[in-house]
Amino acid sequence: MSEKLQLHIIGCGSARPTKQSNQTSQILTQRGKQYMIDCGEGTQFQLRRQNMHINRMNHIFISHLHGDHFFGLIGLISTLGMLGRTAELCIHAMPEIEKLLNEMIKFCCQGMTYEIRFCPINPYKHELIYEDRTMEVYTIPLKHRVPCCGFLFKEKENQPHLIKDMIDFYKIPIAELAKIKNGADYITPDGEIVANNRLTTPADPIKSYAYCSDTAYSEKIIPIIEGVDCLYHEATFMKADEPRARLTCHSTTEHAATIAKLAQVKQLIIGHYSARYDEYESLLNEAKAIFPNTLLAIDGKDFEI
Amino acid sequence: MSEKLQLHIIGCGSARPTKQSNQTSQILTQRGKQYMIDCGEGTQFQLRRQNMHINRMNHIFISHLHGDHFFGLIGLISTLGMLGRTAELCIHAMPEIEKLLNEMIKFCCQGMTYEIRFCPINPYKHELIYEDRTMEVYTIPLKHRVPCCGFLFKEKENQPHLIKDMIDFYKIPIAELAKIKNGADYITPDGEIVANNRLTTPADPIKSYAYCSDTAYSEKIIPIIEGVDCLYHEATFMKADEPRARLTCHSTTEHAATIAKLAQVKQLIIGHYSARYDEYESLLNEAKAIFPNTLLAIDGKDFEI
Repeated sequence: MSEKLQLHIIGCGSARPTKQSNQTSQILTQRGKQYMIDCGEGTQFQLRRQNMHINRMNHIFISHLHGDHFFGLIGLISTLGMLGRTAELCIHAMPEIEKLLNEMIKFCCQGMTYEIRFCPINPYKHELIYEDRTMEVYTIPLKHRVPCCGFLFKEKENQPHLIKDMIDFYKIPIAELAKIKNGADYITPDGEIVANNRLTTPADPIKSYAYCSDTAYSEKIIPIIEGVDCLYHEATFMKADEPRARLTCHSTTEHAATIAKLAQVKQLIIGHYSARYDEYESLLNEAKAIFPNTLLAIDGKDFEI
Repeated sequence: MSEKLQLHIIGCGSARPTKQSNQTSQILTQRGKQYMIDCGEGTQFQLRRQNMHINRMNHIFISHLHGDHFFGLIGLISTLGMLGRTAELCIHAMPEIEKLLNEMIKFCCQGMTYEIRFCPINPYKHELIYEDRTMEVYTIPLKHRVPCCGFLFKEKENQPHLIKDMIDFYKIPIAELAKIKNGADYITPDGEIVANNRLTTPADPIKSYAYCSDTAYSEKIIPIIEGVDCLYHEATFMKADEPRARLTCHSTTEHAATIAKLAQVKQLIIGHYSARYDEYESLLNEAKAIFPNTLLAIDGKDFEI
């Protein structure tokens, strides 16, 4: 199991389907735990085509209720039921989703083997909406035609690594290990004090990932995403199509790269491409001119954060 | 525009997604008019991948309300709206579909440019549910875990073809042509009688197509589909998996081929393959042993009826 934070792009197109890009969905993986972000139509087929297994996915975060970000949920929910899933699945989304999906679930997914829990989110507020032992997830209010928010995934402070040879040498009992991980020295039965820094190596640096789609250009998000290791920012349009971006509350390549630059993020991934573009290199070049460390999202691609 | 009845397979898999087969959907085309049958998740993406345009599709027939036969509707409806469709779209399906879809349509497809009309069908009755100038569509009650029906498409009596050279030679006015197509002779201004058989060639034979999915083996459908030019019959399982077919109210290859044989249809297409099979040739061979003129449905394939 990788210790790294990994991002898998299931789909990175926008609403109108194209041959190269499915509608939006991603999987963020941390130490084997998987978090799904958005779930456009066809997400379950993309997973199959991409040989992606989601056995450890218990949380789905939906940015907003436009079809290209959630129409794949009902099919995924139904298929997970057919495959005999038993673990509860939490769907973090605008409160309206429960009413929209429940009717379908009740009618189409009879005899479900697992529970679905809807966790309503307030897209207008930047707040902690989920945490577990190793991860925190915050909302990022965005500016779109409908209530919409991004998500900031922040690893919690990592613990130092134990040096196995030293643990073995001093025959340190298991009960002591948690204290050592928390910084304690070890006192041997003979009263010898072994300093913590002889028993551990420093913790891995914590990583952070911000997902911002769909959104018009908005500098309000900068304080929230400042300095993240990786920012996914939609770039639906090229600069020349800015009037269209403005009209539809989307961003251009220039917008995405400017936000990345102002927020001093370490890496930018662009995606959510309009169906009007046959190739994405031109979008990449425009963004790179402003923020050199920009990468293109591509369906099926993995990024190490 | 082809005069032939043509069947295009958009997807021919069953509920669980596989790499080779999308969920069920088909397009039947007659003289440029298109009828969609079922609409599994991802249908709009398949259409795009298969370069299939549906500008002349005004009627969708849904066999039953299992997700793999209708979860693609909401995405398709939404995308057609974005593309500026104006023609009314009729959805022929069980009455419950209206409630299931309307909530989503109201919420997700604001400012729709076209009307959707729900035409409820009674799956327990064999009856005419649609007709236009050249086509009739009848329900075929099937035997499944939920209310389910197939569809019988029957071309109406075709008209004879006018012989253009003769029409030109006698300078026959346009107003007379409809009468000649209906069998009348032509009387020239000089009183000469030109016999109808000198002005026309015989009409094309009428064709018929029966779609039967999903269904357990049921001989009750035989009187309805007897002698059709083409029968699509589900063959979810191989003969060895018959217990599973029985349990899930599906058919085996043997069932499909036996129905085709007893009903003396001219051609059988099998499909709706279970995800357990990696290749379909074995299914084809089993069916062919009973009904030699059997073909395999394959995503993206066209059949001339």
